[in-house]
Amino acid sequence: MKVYLDNSATTAMATEVVDAMLPYFSEEMGNAQSVHSFGQRAKAAVEKARRQVAELIDAAPAEIVFVSGGTEADNLALRGIAEAHRDYGRHIITTRIEHPAVLATCEALERSEFRITYLPVSSRGLIDIEDVRDAIGDDTILISVMLANNETGTIQPIEEIAGAVSKARGRGVEHLHFHTDAVQAVGKIPVDVKRLGVDLLSLSAHKIHGPKGVGALYVRKGTRLSKLLHGGHHERDRRAGTENVPGIVGLGKAAELARVQLDERAARMRELRDYLESQLMTYVTNVRINGDAERRVPNISNLSFEGVDGESLLISLDLKGVAVSTGSACASGSLEPSHVLQALGLSREEVRGSLRISLSAYTTRDEIDYAVSVLRETVLRLREMSPDSEGDLIQSAGFSKPN
Amino acid sequence: MKVYLDNSATTAMATEVVDAMLPYFSEEMGNAQSVHSFGQRAKAAVEKARRQVAELIDAAPAEIVFVSGGTEADNLALRGIAEAHRDYGRHIITTRIEHPAVLATCEALERSEFRITYLPVSSRGLIDIEDVRDAIGDDTILISVMLANNETGTIQPIEEIAGAVSKARGRGVEHLHFHTDAVQAVGKIPVDVKRLGVDLLSLSAHKIHGPKGVGALYVRKGTRLSKLLHGGHHERDRRAGTENVPGIVGLGKAAELARVQLDERAARMRELRDYLESQLMTYVTNVRINGDAERRVPNISNLSFEGVDGESLLISLDLKGVAVSTGSACASGSLEPSHVLQALGLSREEVRGSLRISLSAYTTRDEIDYAVSVLRETVLRLREMSPDSEGDLIQSAGFSKPN
Repeated sequence: MKVYLDNSATTAMATEVVDAMLPYFSEEMGNAQSVHSFGQRAKAAVEKARRQVAELIDAAPAEIVFVSGGTEADNLALRGIAEAHRDYGRHIITTRIEHPAVLATCEALERSEFRITYLPVSSRGLIDIEDVRDAIGDDTILISVMLANNETGTIQPIEEIAGAVSKARGRGVEHLHFHTDAVQAVGKIPVDVKRLGVDLLSLSAHKIHGPKGVGALYVRKGTRLSKLLHGGHHERDRRAGTENVPGIVGLGKAAELARVQLDERAARMRELRDYLESQLMTYVTNVRINGDAERRVPNISNLSFEGVDGESLLISLDLKGVAVSTGSACASGSLEPSHVLQALGLSREEVRGSLRISLSAYTTRDEIDYAVSVLRETVLRLREMSPDSEGDLIQSAGFSKPN
Repeated sequence: MKVYLDNSATTAMATEVVDAMLPYFSEEMGNAQSVHSFGQRAKAAVEKARRQVAELIDAAPAEIVFVSGGTEADNLALRGIAEAHRDYGRHIITTRIEHPAVLATCEALERSEFRITYLPVSSRGLIDIEDVRDAIGDDTILISVMLANNETGTIQPIEEIAGAVSKARGRGVEHLHFHTDAVQAVGKIPVDVKRLGVDLLSLSAHKIHGPKGVGALYVRKGTRLSKLLHGGHHERDRRAGTENVPGIVGLGKAAELARVQLDERAARMRELRDYLESQLMTYVTNVRINGDAERRVPNISNLSFEGVDGESLLISLDLKGVAVSTGSACASGSLEPSHVLQALGLSREEVRGSLRISLSAYTTRDEIDYAVSVLRETVLRLREMSPDSEGDLIQSAGFSKPN
């Protein structure tokens, strides 16, 4: 049996998405900038997708900029605001648990004379809204806080931050903008840019059963943003480059499915995720849930198995056909332990023993049952093999659930 | 009949390319950064594509960086060299006829304290190698000259420029790099980075019957290049963002087909392009070929029809099912006349009356015959309708061929 439970890394495309894209590979292959009918049909397809994405997040179509993925969306948001507003301020606020696309862009901005405040998080992975308020200065031009964390799924208080942003603007911090990386939240929980109160929001197609290589940045009307990719006047002069028509069509369809099926998908994922956790807690000792067990997206379970090396566990599970991950796929090139779990204050051993299990809308109960049985058996075996294995770890039914 | 003759704007995907991509949409949907077997198979597919692209241009696989398209490749090349070497020099040399992705990036660099020399071209669209030599100064860090122009197809003397670059380095201009935008040349003429002597080369999948939204930048081993997209350590830390696995697989397959079928495709396109031109010159009066009629890629014909408005011609042709363009699709948002044809010294009327007809490896003689008959009839009709039509334009067989 092959069970893919690494849907926070990437998802399989929905059949409806593939079907929507196929015509744009061959017959309908026009360049959306071309004047002739091939071009006009391509343009119409792009604009339909723009409406689909806009509708998913309650934006206007003109506020959607298609890009090559979540990383480009984050880079465009941060670099675009920083460059356009650098004469008004050089201070940016973010958190220690952001995706590498945000953190590495912040580090690059530090090298070009921006000052970055990296906010800490609690042991449950939440930022403190008071820290945000305290960090805002007269020269703050941007706050970037992710909606849902990619490793733990923890949901940040975006609306409250928006309130603080609004107040700061009211007292004269005019150039302050608010960006959220919603790559892991879209399709899992309701994401509404008006309710959230953000100026910019990143999303990615391949996390919601759409194609890889395409994403979108929501840019609130009237926001001054510098370009990252220069060239033609595509995307209302926000992003140059021939439109990835099939990819954009795929994102549009994936967005439509995510909107229409959100409640059903979320309920299903939550039920199976909770079932997975309750089964593991029943059959495996000394497991803890990392991050806030309540305030999180319904498809992620980040667990630490005491006395087990996450990497060994991952590899053993893979041999049995179960695909999961330790931390984020995007950071797996680096051999460093998860910066997210470290920020939560986990011990080295807890970080080392962590595993991210992430479900999709298509995950089945049979798959979860199989994964649980393989996990149970593998954790037991690894603990037995461990030189520092202790009887109580293997046999006791104790389970630590710190949050 | 539908005849698509705008293959310099974009091409239909080859069936082999679509077939190669399909598995990576669903079963083989892993993230190439994931440790488990889904991820490892995705990674293997990406690395196979890297070898296919490398082989097409005689590079080493490690010298290929996958990006989101030709525009990103150009941006990464220019911005990447400029940022990495700005402490050694702030001078860049390019030409007046580059693609907007190069020209607009140069303009952006001018705003961040770089000095740009825009070289002129002859009436045939060729730069003068002496101008290049004269322009190189001690602070020149980059020369960017396209291999084949996207509007006229004219091929620049890249090897000679490489010779000048080599000499300049020999006399101490150490940080000088040489980039060529080969987006329109790849798949049309042999493109060999070693023979050309370039340090960086841009190519795009969708111009060679591959997918939109993916391209590659060749970066010669040892070249210091700043990142454009920050985040994970993908692409040997040259370009962050989840790999577009299906897109990359598609580019790989398209590159393989382009390599294996190059001679056959080029001969076929040249024959049909030359046939198209000879037919037009026989049946339509006062047509001229823009750009160097000899030194050009085999699939492009840029023509000026005296006394005819290119835009009207394009629209009339479209109504008869024939898709062509006036100038570059990427510049069509701007209402300005072609900067390329202006640089060649064409009169306003000649620019206004210009049309780009671009063939693909799949264009047939029947399609060309149909296009010629439609063109012939449409040019005649438009000239008859023109308020300043003159009898000789309609009836005379005179044809001006200035180059």
